[in-house]
Amino acid sequence: MLVLVTYDVGTTHSAGQRRLRQVSKVCQNYGQRVQNSVFECVVDATEFEVLKMKLIDIIDEEQDSLRFYQLGNNYKSKVEHVGIKESLDLEGPLIL
Amino acid sequence: MLVLVTYDVGTTHSAGQRRLRQVSKVCQNYGQRVQNSVFECVVDATEFEVLKMKLIDIIDEEQDSLRFYQLGNNYKSKVEHVGIKESLDLEGPLIL
Repeated sequence: MLVLVTYDVGTTHSAGQRRLRQVSKVCQNYGQRVQNSVFECVVDATEFEVLKMKLIDIIDEEQDSLRFYQLGNNYKSKVEHVGIKESLDLEGPLIL
Repeated sequence: MLVLVTYDVGTTHSAGQRRLRQVSKVCQNYGQRVQNSVFECVVDATEFEVLKMKLIDIIDEEQDSLRFYQLGNNYKSKVEHVGIKESLDLEGPLIL
């Protein structure tokens, strides 16, 4: 299923930027970054629980905000994009 | 249905900040801001089309990225939050 992760980092200081980089790195193991603080991850139920635990370990719950949205398996028709940086097809063939 | 709007503004300059404020103002007519550039809007199919048109008019498609995610009507179990700024229940009773 597709899980959307949105992350609002609580500070513009270096600690916040470091947490954003760490969140990005974890999310990119499961999918891709589609905007500065928005990640689309394709996971099963177990991977979703692991992903959540990893991200909760990274963030500062006193300063940051992390949201998870479950889009299900038939998500392609549910996502629309306008403007720059159209995302890749996560499950399509990889063309190099 | 719940539509999630995520908006990546292409510049930190004042023009970008002005567009973000305009996007926020439009989205808040349909719902609420849950993170700096993430908005949850409760709309029907017609309102969704109007919302999209309004936002596309505001953004700079050469610089900005706008994404729409349709979460359907039974969205409450699909959204999870960790950290600060828990969102309000959009359709719950308003307690003043």
